[in-house]
Amino acid sequence: MSQPPVIRHALNVTREADFAAWYQDVISEAEMAEESGVRGCMVIKPWGYGIWERIQKLMDARIKAAGVDNCYFPLFIPLSYFAEEAEHVEGFAKEMAVVTHHRLIQDGKGGLIPDPEAKLEEPLIVRPTSETVIGKAMARWIQSWRDLPLLTNQWANVVRWEMRTRMFLRTSEFLWQEGHTAHADKADAMAETLRALEMYREVAEDDLALPVIVGEKPENERFPGAVATYSIEAMMQDGKALQAGTSHYLGTGFAEAAGIRYQDRDGQQTLCHTTSWGVSTRMIGGLIMVHGDDDGLRVPPKVAPQQIVILPMLREDDGDAALLAYCEDLRNALAAQNTLGEPIRVLLDKRAGKATQKRWAWVKKGVPLILEIGGRDAAGGQVSVVRRDRLWRPDGKVNFIAQSRDLFLSQAAAELEDVQQSLHAEATQRRDAQIERGITDMAGLEAFFAETNRYPGWAELAWSRPTGAALEGVVQKLKALKLTIRNTPLDGAPVTGICPFTGEPAVERIYVARAY
Amino acid sequence: MSQPPVIRHALNVTREADFAAWYQDVISEAEMAEESGVRGCMVIKPWGYGIWERIQKLMDARIKAAGVDNCYFPLFIPLSYFAEEAEHVEGFAKEMAVVTHHRLIQDGKGGLIPDPEAKLEEPLIVRPTSETVIGKAMARWIQSWRDLPLLTNQWANVVRWEMRTRMFLRTSEFLWQEGHTAHADKADAMAETLRALEMYREVAEDDLALPVIVGEKPENERFPGAVATYSIEAMMQDGKALQAGTSHYLGTGFAEAAGIRYQDRDGQQTLCHTTSWGVSTRMIGGLIMVHGDDDGLRVPPKVAPQQIVILPMLREDDGDAALLAYCEDLRNALAAQNTLGEPIRVLLDKRAGKATQKRWAWVKKGVPLILEIGGRDAAGGQVSVVRRDRLWRPDGKVNFIAQSRDLFLSQAAAELEDVQQSLHAEATQRRDAQIERGITDMAGLEAFFAETNRYPGWAELAWSRPTGAALEGVVQKLKALKLTIRNTPLDGAPVTGICPFTGEPAVERIYVARAY
Repeated sequence: MSQPPVIRHALNVTREADFAAWYQDVISEAEMAEESGVRGCMVIKPWGYGIWERIQKLMDARIKAAGVDNCYFPLFIPLSYFAEEAEHVEGFAKEMAVVTHHRLIQDGKGGLIPDPEAKLEEPLIVRPTSETVIGKAMARWIQSWRDLPLLTNQWANVVRWEMRTRMFLRTSEFLWQEGHTAHADKADAMAETLRALEMYREVAEDDLALPVIVGEKPENERFPGAVATYSIEAMMQDGKALQAGTSHYLGTGFAEAAGIRYQDRDGQQTLCHTTSWGVSTRMIGGLIMVHGDDDGLRVPPKVAPQQIVILPMLREDDGDAALLAYCEDLRNALAAQNTLGEPIRVLLDKRAGKATQKRWAWVKKGVPLILEIGGRDAAGGQVSVVRRDRLWRPDGKVNFIAQSRDLFLSQAAAELEDVQQSLHAEATQRRDAQIERGITDMAGLEAFFAETNRYPGWAELAWSRPTGAALEGVVQKLKALKLTIRNTPLDGAPVTGICPFTGEPAVERIYVARAY
Repeated sequence: MSQPPVIRHALNVTREADFAAWYQDVISEAEMAEESGVRGCMVIKPWGYGIWERIQKLMDARIKAAGVDNCYFPLFIPLSYFAEEAEHVEGFAKEMAVVTHHRLIQDGKGGLIPDPEAKLEEPLIVRPTSETVIGKAMARWIQSWRDLPLLTNQWANVVRWEMRTRMFLRTSEFLWQEGHTAHADKADAMAETLRALEMYREVAEDDLALPVIVGEKPENERFPGAVATYSIEAMMQDGKALQAGTSHYLGTGFAEAAGIRYQDRDGQQTLCHTTSWGVSTRMIGGLIMVHGDDDGLRVPPKVAPQQIVILPMLREDDGDAALLAYCEDLRNALAAQNTLGEPIRVLLDKRAGKATQKRWAWVKKGVPLILEIGGRDAAGGQVSVVRRDRLWRPDGKVNFIAQSRDLFLSQAAAELEDVQQSLHAEATQRRDAQIERGITDMAGLEAFFAETNRYPGWAELAWSRPTGAALEGVVQKLKALKLTIRNTPLDGAPVTGICPFTGEPAVERIYVARAY
């Protein structure tokens, strides 16, 4: 009889055993990031930062193509700017890093203290988001209708003091882009809000292979001060939701606070309609929790810092020179090809070390294709290749496939495209299987989410879109079940039935889930 | 008789009249940056930020090619990290932004104050540079000789509290890259220090067209804690020097403070030798002061956000559709070509507004080639083109040249290459003409710098390389003349003569100048 399959796992913990611990383990084993020793802040290591650079590059090209100009605004925002926007502050701007001094002095005991003589007249806030300071710039830059629309973006670090942090998902400092635009009227501002949202959908689906639901957040989940907030929501493998990007139509409220007015074609001073939209390093957390498996990360080729790694099986003997020459030639032949619209990113890993250790390091990092080349492969014009998303054979062995070099070279670009598609298809299938559409009342909702300790997925409900106190009642009921409303999809599908919360006729759908 | 040439200037002030005011005027008129309203911080506007993006792109490719990995480290550094490195602090780290609280509360009078209940146990410093926090990461990452060299870089914002600020040259917050590397021995660390320095020379000379002197800083100008500091120094049009990039060999001092040790091949625990190197948005200040003229900025094509701007002379009549079609075709034909290793960056400026106003806006921004296309040009297959670096004819008219479209297209790539070369050649010629090599004593030095209120340039002296108290004496003498030693060139040219400061035989050359 054949042996039962032996599935080895490269990580210290499986998703099934402890999803939260698995998440941390992937980040650690894939060398993506680590705790910095500075409270709430992480160090993003080369593999994690390389993924962020890829996301930046692909998103920035879309931002530029939309005519949005990159700028850079100050890290510090005077305290008084926040006081001017009370609603803004009410919402989330309380937990912020406050700079109060600008100099250190010796404390006389070998240490250092803030110099009492160098206390700032007005404290400065480390930006949690830049609406206030960019609003003041817009007020300076906009005079007439000819200056509109004004479309700006910045790539920056921001700080929101967090008590409980989780790498990539919630850190006190994080990296993001924030788009800020000003328009002549609501229609134009809304079009920009939705353009940014569609851009985020494209980056998520086409680049990160993350299936997302594009929709409007309910009133209670709006960005403080926004008239409408839209999001893309992705389902993690534990069934929880991750808000992966938001776009806000801000109406004229921020324009009024900052004095963003323009002279219209009739000579009238008119308030601008503004928008803001942002995506952060949080997306990398989503990437991990959607595509990772029990052997580590799997990175979609479009955002992989390296798409192919070549591992020569060095033996420190005379044959190594020929083997390395063969591998270098292979690398050059791959780098000269395009896939997914760019040259193939290929690394020849010549570092010292055991070949199997190096292989597993790359498996854990999730590089899409791994090649192992021995002396005999080189002599025979062969390669041995494994797809990270098809790592195992049913017999428990690593799924390396021996191929002629020429055949591999002729298929490599298409293979990477297929990995990109396959990861997206796999995630979409899993997501769709975990959306429950049959729930019509609160009892059903409770039963669905009570089934297991792990979250079974999302409930898609048809509701009557209550507002104000009625909505607050719904939010509290859901909160008792640790659930939130994610968004109302914008797909325009017809809605029927009765709202499980109000008993009124349903007017739209919502997704209800536990969320990160 | 012919009229005398009428030279019009697009700015409000000339270099000759007031160089400092001219510098601010270029920044303002070219829409590169502006005061933000936040003390010491500027807003970098699209044209200024676009130049920074170009510098980043060209430098980052070199950083990656050298095998250096980009990472991201925390914005905040605990106060105690600085206390550990007393020498570091002694040098420059006193004027820093200190975060002391993490929450705001209402003050009961409609304002906000830092919450006394949310005072940090240990204040956090907004990074002025990241040696301390990166050193701690290196200590975690490095165990054995196999981990070396460790080559990291980050693109980041840093803060050094400045009392007197000047845009791009000295602001409290600025953008830069900081490379940090660890090595097994001095030779390897020194090689990396000089590799980074050579990289900076290449970026300055080949990309920004800035001629620079590559050399070692004197002992008194070293980075605090460094064993050796190297710099690239550029001469501005007012004769002053700008340090445009530095690279430091740090010896084992920082490794000792942070505990960066490795097990060598013999099993011994050994201190690493570290380096750091950085270039900032300051380089853009140098670009302005080297290439600008009385009509605004002139941007070398390699770092120009747009290399060619096409201005259709719109008349709001029936002919505009044909004119625009002609211009769009021209734009597409240009964008399909390569120059200086990349696709040509070309903008068709279709905005409303007077054609001459638009022209002068682009002249002030310094776009290398400006095309004005009228209806008759479109009908006749012509273009009218002016090089920004050859803007004026002797008769005082703008130097537009009418050409057939096809001829222009066949020459555009080469023309941009020529602008790149010409700006470099012009700056080199000016710089070399302003270096005085005939000074042999203090009286000569005083006389050279006393000649005029404007700075006549640099003095190249041969000196005996005094150290300690002797050097301090020289530094004080120079300080009385508002002069500093810039660096000792690494070009290896022979040295003869007697040191004007010590009377001893000279061993090397130095450049003495007033500096930004």
